Amino acid sequence: MRFFSDNAALVHPKVMAAIAAANHVDNAYDGDRWSKRLEQVFSDLFERQVRCLWIATGTAANAIALSAMVRPYQGIVCHEEAHIEMDEAGAPGFYTGGAKLLLTPGAGAKLTPAAVQGRLSSIRGDVHQVQAAALSVTNATEYGLVYSADEVAALGALARRHNISFHMDGARFANAIVSAGCSPADMTWRSGVDALSFGFVKNGGMNAEALIFFNDPMADMAQYQRKQAGHLFSKGRFAAAQLLAMLDGDLWLHNARAANAAAALIGEAAGERLLYPVEANEVFLRLTAAEAATLRTAGFDFYDWGDEAARIVTSWHHDVDDVRPLASAIAAL
Amino acid sequence: MRFFSDNAALVHPKVMAAIAAANHVDNAYDGDRWSKRLEQVFSDLFERQVRCLWIATGTAANAIALSAMVRPYQGIVCHEEAHIEMDEAGAPGFYTGGAKLLLTPGAGAKLTPAAVQGRLSSIRGDVHQVQAAALSVTNATEYGLVYSADEVAALGALARRHNISFHMDGARFANAIVSAGCSPADMTWRSGVDALSFGFVKNGGMNAEALIFFNDPMADMAQYQRKQAGHLFSKGRFAAAQLLAMLDGDLWLHNARAANAAAALIGEAAGERLLYPVEANEVFLRLTAAEAATLRTAGFDFYDWGDEAARIVTSWHHDVDDVRPLASAIAAL
Amino acid sequence: MRFFSDNAALVHPKVMAAIAAANHVDNAYDGDRWSKRLEQVFSDLFERQVRCLWIATGTAANAIALSAMVRPYQGIVCHEEAHIEMDEAGAPGFYTGGAKLLLTPGAGAKLTPAAVQGRLSSIRGDVHQVQAAALSVTNATEYGLVYSADEVAALGALARRHNISFHMDGARFANAIVSAGCSPADMTWRSGVDALSFGFVKNGGMNAEALIFFNDPMADMAQYQRKQAGHLFSKGRFAAAQLLAMLDGDLWLHNARAANAAAALIGEAAGERLLYPVEANEVFLRLTAAEAATLRTAGFDFYDWGDEAARIVTSWHHDVDDVRPLASAIAAL
Amino acid sequence: MRFFSDNAALVHPKVMAAIAAANHVDNAYDGDRWSKRLEQVFSDLFERQVRCLWIATGTAANAIALSAMVRPYQGIVCHEEAHIEMDEAGAPGFYTGGAKLLLTPGAGAKLTPAAVQGRLSSIRGDVHQVQAAALSVTNATEYGLVYSADEVAALGALARRHNISFHMDGARFANAIVSAGCSPADMTWRSGVDALSFGFVKNGGMNAEALIFFNDPMADMAQYQRKQAGHLFSKGRFAAAQLLAMLDGDLWLHNARAANAAAALIGEAAGERLLYPVEANEVFLRLTAAEAATLRTAGFDFYDWGDEAARIVTSWHHDVDDVRPLASAIAAL
Repeated sequence: MRFFSDNAALVHPKVMAAIAAANHVDNAYDGDRWSKRLEQVFSDLFERQVRCLWIATGTAANAIALSAMVRPYQGIVCHEEAHIEMDEAGAPGFYTGGAKLLLTPGAGAKLTPAAVQGRLSSIRGDVHQVQAAALSVTNATEYGLVYSADEVAALGALARRHNISFHMDGARFANAIVSAGCSPADMTWRSGVDALSFGFVKNGGMNAEALIFFNDPMADMAQYQRKQAGHLFSKGRFAAAQLLAMLDGDLWLHNARAANAAAALIGEAAGERLLYPVEANEVFLRLTAAEAATLRTAGFDFYDWGDEAARIVTSWHHDVDDVRPLASAIAAL
Repeated sequence: MRFFSDNAALVHPKVMAAIAAANHVDNAYDGDRWSKRLEQVFSDLFERQVRCLWIATGTAANAIALSAMVRPYQGIVCHEEAHIEMDEAGAPGFYTGGAKLLLTPGAGAKLTPAAVQGRLSSIRGDVHQVQAAALSVTNATEYGLVYSADEVAALGALARRHNISFHMDGARFANAIVSAGCSPADMTWRSGVDALSFGFVKNGGMNAEALIFFNDPMADMAQYQRKQAGHLFSKGRFAAAQLLAMLDGDLWLHNARAANAAAALIGEAAGERLLYPVEANEVFLRLTAAEAATLRTAGFDFYDWGDEAARIVTSWHHDVDDVRPLASAIAAL
Repeated sequence: MRFFSDNAALVHPKVMAAIAAANHVDNAYDGDRWSKRLEQVFSDLFERQVRCLWIATGTAANAIALSAMVRPYQGIVCHEEAHIEMDEAGAPGFYTGGAKLLLTPGAGAKLTPAAVQGRLSSIRGDVHQVQAAALSVTNATEYGLVYSADEVAALGALARRHNISFHMDGARFANAIVSAGCSPADMTWRSGVDALSFGFVKNGGMNAEALIFFNDPMADMAQYQRKQAGHLFSKGRFAAAQLLAMLDGDLWLHNARAANAAAALIGEAAGERLLYPVEANEVFLRLTAAEAATLRTAGFDFYDWGDEAARIVTSWHHDVDDVRPLASAIAAL
Repeated sequence: MRFFSDNAALVHPKVMAAIAAANHVDNAYDGDRWSKRLEQVFSDLFERQVRCLWIATGTAANAIALSAMVRPYQGIVCHEEAHIEMDEAGAPGFYTGGAKLLLTPGAGAKLTPAAVQGRLSSIRGDVHQVQAAALSVTNATEYGLVYSADEVAALGALARRHNISFHMDGARFANAIVSAGCSPADMTWRSGVDALSFGFVKNGGMNAEALIFFNDPMADMAQYQRKQAGHLFSKGRFAAAQLLAMLDGDLWLHNARAANAAAALIGEAAGERLLYPVEANEVFLRLTAAEAATLRTAGFDFYDWGDEAARIVTSWHHDVDDVRPLASAIAAL
């Protein structure tokens, strides 16, 4: 059984069905009836008017959001292990025409107001240094930790004080919401977030994320930038339909609950081995090479994380029965 | 019946089935078994080793190809009504970091060696003017004309003499191949083409084009650029599966033949009204506002093309029986 | 005697003296006492508070001004023979990260409101086409014609109606002011101009132009962009001192008057040969190859302008006595 | 007496004289007789054919060199306190269209092969991470340390093994050469350097650095990039004349010797207070706030370096007699 990545996981059957059901002649790009429903559906979810653009990947969603926030000579405060720094091939620099990521430390890839303030204070306020114009956090983080709405609000307040924009990379936003138990509104705009990369692909989608703006001028820019970057699908209805299916009947929450529960079960089995508390759908645990080999021999696949640890990622289709054998195998090590 | 755009058309059922069949857990990005088959399948088609990257849109395919050919201070010779100039939101400028399109006239959006030579000769060879580093042609053109392999070869020879790269925007490559009756190899690399944006979305695909390189260093660059631009789907197997389905049993040719035949039927009915010979799947015809209204009242939709003309685009699912009523209505005007 | 270009001309002795006089230890970059005086001096000249950045070249001044006005997916309306299009190596595209020049025709490289309106109206208002966000005019134009303050105001009103920014390339602003006989304020901000590239190098300076902003947010952006582009001299006092010397005692007007007068004299001699009226310091005249050879044999150098014409450019150091022999030689042809 | 920065220092009288002597009508841009002599003069200095472009600032020299080495999706290994990272406003990101600086630690801002190898090894070799394509070192470093030719050669060999380009920021190259006692050739191309930002402004120049290429294709690119970035002065002779004056009679070495000697004298006086050995023209020393105040009261100005230290920079015009009072004051603390 594979626990490599939620990227590799299955597309949910309801999403598959929605894609199939969208195969009608309709207007091109985002002029179709599916795309046109998006803003209403997401506005309902977020309890206010929002702007919503479908977009194929989280990397594009992040980079387009950030390009609406900073100029080429400005910078984006983010964690030193943030996905935008580590795994997006320099996309923010490309999309912004040269802006810099201003790396900030923090346990479990989580930023605190103190750490962000420290990073901001380290910048001389002259034209020779790159001035911060945005803050980007990932929720859930790269290590599966979850910011509460209050923690987000504290960062949002700091961003406002410094007059910088606030972006949330929500590749695993669903897992974070399930874990935090708060509303999407509290987790985002009520806490000062201007733009959210709302991930669906890791959570049962195929190739559509939602880029949500709580800020109209940014959304206007992003609409052009999406097209200029070649991200405006000509048959956008197949993207919109995925998002609608995910929101329908709260499938996104249902799926995230399953993945989180599976991770929690593994986390309990891992006990003292855990490198981080298990708050979403990722488990980082200490594992010797021999132990890793034992698990692999038993049919479980996952990433090594350095020499003495491993990363296990659960997905919406890993139900508790599925992961129990892995949990037992870990407990038995 | 709608003849707006082949962008708006249906996805072919075999492509739909292939997408559904790809819903297995597999490696992420382009590490899956579908993606890994692509280069072999396209190499067979092109009768030589090629490099192939799936990519969501023609705009992205074009821009990424061009960004592997030119530097920010260089230029791309193209037709003044080329899609990259008129309808891609400045994507080539964005992807190249500032390179300029060097616009060149030509009837029916078709370039001749003389026109290209004239454009090149108009550039002073100093650092103050933007020097050409690439030539881009569209086959079939924006007006539905088709370059023969010989015509492409004449442009390719010119490009080689001037030491510039050669890109073909093949959003309707299938229609061009069917019309020209030559091999994909003769139409491209044997005629000097370095990179081809091989379109499938207008021809029955959903959201996957193929970016084909006959040049390894360019392909290496494009692979990174695709990721940096956020175009590397995390579940790439659903893109690759579309391309494999389109090539399987020559579905791409089958579909293009249907669209071309439908356009030909309309073209015959249009007779003297035609603005351009009908060589692919587009018909441009003179039509007064009253005549256009008549056709629309009869249930046919299409784009106005300026004040006194219209554009009718046929798709793979317009079989000859489908379009006969439109042909008759035009003939009856 | 050389009439190639005012670029090649001498630096005025007063500018030379000011440079020598600035050789004192002082603060680096633009923190020195010369740089600090600039905004006051230019604010006096323009009869309102302005922002002023010294910058080495007209190309940089233009590109930095434009980069504060447009996003990568937007466009700049300019004449199809504007310097930014023809002779700046694609600088606007590079500085803006991909924005496009929207070329517009007009006799003598001059834009009319009708021509600009026509160009704007040709753009479909969707995300697929590059939307205009700025208008750039050159005064005096590339053919030595001068916009009156009223003509500028008509363009400025049009720009405001379309909510686009307005830039003036004033590489020969001094010659335009002398010719138009209006105030710098009337020629610029009172007519809707947001930013002016105020040229001094062609008019007796060495390597300092003034980039003037009548718009604070743009000036703020430009200050960072100048540094990021490597244009913030570490010993900026030598740039500022040039500008101060040029403004002192209206040297800039004195020099432009001399150049304009010299051109006028040649223009009178050229009579029927003139391609354009002589309004600033450039003379374009019909000249056969044989006639050009005759003039060159007599010791006069200038650029051929195509096959049957020539461009003669006068400079501040061409006083009337200097150019009389050329005028006579032309009259004698 | 001011010891803030060699940026703020005087222009050497011989450079001033050379500028004055260049005030003749000549060809524009770099077509004049001074610019045309540069490559010969620098080729003599470097004992091989080199390419040389004058350029106004070190920031521009560095950024243009790097833009000829990397693509937007690639990275540049440099020290985490390198000038290109700390004080150039993100210029490398802007010029390269998004490339990233890959920060590497090292005492005294000096890189070792082991540290560079460690940074390179930390990068996964896939398209998701930014791959290194260049290495940039600063000699003398930001803390006034000097790489020997052997140390450079070890880094050059490493760069070659990894197939990455090698850039040297030589803002204080003269001070490094004087300190290391080796030839410019040994310090650069014989040790694998592809491009050198050869600084003159800090060493008695006004506004001209030399960008030296030991690699023709890079130089070809840089020539266009310099123009596109607006760095091609229209009266380039005044830049070229500065460089010729600095090389004439080895003025550059003479000046650097004076600055280094002045720093050495202060360094000896500082003794145990030194944070780094004094190898060039910078002295970093521990200094309490009270001690700093004492020195300032005595008429000496310098930068605080954090809370408990100071940076003193000597210039070509600080001869030993000039700095003796400062040395005595430090010794007396």
